[in-house]
Amino acid sequence: MLPQWIIERKRDGHPLTDGELSFFITGYVRGDIPDYQAAALAMAIYFQGMTPDETATLTRLMMQSGDTIDTSSIAAPKIDKHSTGGVGDKISIALAPLVASCGIAVPMMSGRGLGITGGTLDKLESIPGFRINLQPAEFISILKACGCSMIGQTGQLVPADRKLYALRDVTATVPSIPLIVSSIMSKKLAEGIDGLVLDVKCGSGAFMQTPATARDLALALIGVGRSMGKRVTALITAMDQPLGRTVGNALEIRESIDILLGRGPGDSTELTLQLAAEMTTLAGFTPNPEAARPLLLRKLETGQALDVFKTMVRLQGGCDGIVDTPALLPSAPLRQPYAAPCSGFVATVDAGSIGRAALLLGAGRTKTTDRIDPAAGLSALVKVGEQVTAGQPLAILHAATPEHISTALPSVQNAFTIVPGPVTPPPLILERL
Amino acid sequence: MLPQWIIERKRDGHPLTDGELSFFITGYVRGDIPDYQAAALAMAIYFQGMTPDETATLTRLMMQSGDTIDTSSIAAPKIDKHSTGGVGDKISIALAPLVASCGIAVPMMSGRGLGITGGTLDKLESIPGFRINLQPAEFISILKACGCSMIGQTGQLVPADRKLYALRDVTATVPSIPLIVSSIMSKKLAEGIDGLVLDVKCGSGAFMQTPATARDLALALIGVGRSMGKRVTALITAMDQPLGRTVGNALEIRESIDILLGRGPGDSTELTLQLAAEMTTLAGFTPNPEAARPLLLRKLETGQALDVFKTMVRLQGGCDGIVDTPALLPSAPLRQPYAAPCSGFVATVDAGSIGRAALLLGAGRTKTTDRIDPAAGLSALVKVGEQVTAGQPLAILHAATPEHISTALPSVQNAFTIVPGPVTPPPLILERL
Repeated sequence: MLPQWIIERKRDGHPLTDGELSFFITGYVRGDIPDYQAAALAMAIYFQGMTPDETATLTRLMMQSGDTIDTSSIAAPKIDKHSTGGVGDKISIALAPLVASCGIAVPMMSGRGLGITGGTLDKLESIPGFRINLQPAEFISILKACGCSMIGQTGQLVPADRKLYALRDVTATVPSIPLIVSSIMSKKLAEGIDGLVLDVKCGSGAFMQTPATARDLALALIGVGRSMGKRVTALITAMDQPLGRTVGNALEIRESIDILLGRGPGDSTELTLQLAAEMTTLAGFTPNPEAARPLLLRKLETGQALDVFKTMVRLQGGCDGIVDTPALLPSAPLRQPYAAPCSGFVATVDAGSIGRAALLLGAGRTKTTDRIDPAAGLSALVKVGEQVTAGQPLAILHAATPEHISTALPSVQNAFTIVPGPVTPPPLILERL
Repeated sequence: MLPQWIIERKRDGHPLTDGELSFFITGYVRGDIPDYQAAALAMAIYFQGMTPDETATLTRLMMQSGDTIDTSSIAAPKIDKHSTGGVGDKISIALAPLVASCGIAVPMMSGRGLGITGGTLDKLESIPGFRINLQPAEFISILKACGCSMIGQTGQLVPADRKLYALRDVTATVPSIPLIVSSIMSKKLAEGIDGLVLDVKCGSGAFMQTPATARDLALALIGVGRSMGKRVTALITAMDQPLGRTVGNALEIRESIDILLGRGPGDSTELTLQLAAEMTTLAGFTPNPEAARPLLLRKLETGQALDVFKTMVRLQGGCDGIVDTPALLPSAPLRQPYAAPCSGFVATVDAGSIGRAALLLGAGRTKTTDRIDPAAGLSALVKVGEQVTAGQPLAILHAATPEHISTALPSVQNAFTIVPGPVTPPPLILERL
């Protein structure tokens, strides 16, 4: 068998056999198959797609390309959440402690931000001292101690994805559903989970811009997870406006603490509760998501969820004083309100534009090697449907220099539309699958 | 500009600008753009194609990626022929001296064989001492001395194609019309020619299997050549059965000498005359191809064409004694006839099967690094339409060992079909464009 024969078969639209996929993936990880053949195959997959069986096989092979986390010593059900990424999506940070406080283990491996999409790891690293690079033994030990731990992908886990993702990024082969699905699911399944809830974002600030494509991606993700014996549900959620009222790393940590204190913004709190309810249901702790709500609200009210967060931060080397003393988080020297140009009702807060503004303020990176400013971003964002008066701030911009502010300002201006008449706030959750 | 943006634009079906193509090709040749990005772009071009303008620009950029041959010191019109390759296609070897004997300069850069398709360079190298690696100065000097010279692609010519072709070969991106056209035409135009006749093969032994795809390729080749101010015509010719009666390197040199002696097989002689007539017409020496026939037949009858061949062989270091003493050419220790299993008329001599048989006898290579046996191959091939009696040889197999013969025999058997009733010989030339 030669790699180019496999590329040719995919190019011509044939499904690849388990043997062909195995030959290619193991050869690629071992270095026998060079990047240029993997790039050609990825582009052929972009055009020809993959059947559900092929996608499942590719996912399994990628998962098996390295170590997997052995969570068998943890008695509790192990449930995780994955979001396809959006602007202001800090949900994991409050969600994991909330769900852990119900007795579920949440072994969460997250990623870094790229482009307009933030990354949970970058947000956590704005907490002074917080370590995201843990060895599997420490990860398991923290999971046992407080029920959740949030780390980066370790070098030994899913090397196939590490290699393939870096290649896809520079060969214009990122937006392919089978490649996205195998990348996401191989990492999630390597965590040793029993179940997974997927938050598939849809809108101008998301990778999938239409409900139809978001649904296709959600169904493909669910299919692969279920084919590997995992309990999986998915919510398709709106990403036309940023989630919550903050975008930027330390700013989003503050909002996450507010959610755990029961005083977070309506939308980010609601999504946290809905996803948590899916997770308690996947764990078998509640018969359905609706039944979970009183339990979850109690965990917030009693401070149990917040306690788990503080313990996790401390166990991962972070300063848990940030909860009571927010000033311990990085803060920007410049804070400039952006005033409403007229009175009326907020019709759009474009997530894509706000994401670009945050990037230009210093909160994100365009290349994986860029450094980020943990304090930069936007806070006090208004939400679609809110009534505003001329001169009132629509957002506060946080940055290190006036240049950052002036560079970001056009994107901020582009984000907002204000109309004279009332606007109905759009739904947060578009579909449950 | 980043290479992946260019890949993405092609992936999404947009024509690339001259600037984008130039950025990519010059970056690739310089080594700034790695093979994996070129592989992804090649696969995107495979799926999305290229406009005639894009193909012409790509060809020009590839041609300009290295040196070009300066033929300005040669007063005669410079006309070449290119064949897309087939089984038993030895036409160049007699054609170049024949046309040169009419006063036209034929600066011919050829390739090596791969798979079932033979290569002119391999055939020439079966002549003891023949050198195909000449520097441009020697190439020009031989052209001036005898009117034709046949060499391999030198290192400084069209490095973009050298690099890209090797990459396409291992990434399943060979069969793409814009990539084929730019590969062929960049090399031909770098020879410093005024005109070109194309022999586009069509059938089971050719790259293009149907008249429609052969026509598409021919039109694309003509389009690029004419857009660069060259006179170009094309013949679409049959490649369902091998050309002539021999397949294999030294065996095809013998047949070429027979053509020059005026005693070659009907089909290979006829195609040589037709292509030569196109070339004298492109040179302006004859008003149309029909008018060229008496001139060309005279050049064969008087031995002038053969004299040019002998001179070229001698000037390129080869033994011109092979013309009068064919035993000076390599010959195989084993020669085994393959007998007709029944009497009747030859209905098929499948070029693909005969090509595979020649490969298995040792005449070809499956990888560019394989060694070939110059003496191996098939001779005395019957032609479609001929009447045969049971036991009469349909071909003679030439090989180094009995194992080669037994390995090749099934392909030989598969090649022939004999039917009871008469069979009309198929046309040799399908279309002139």
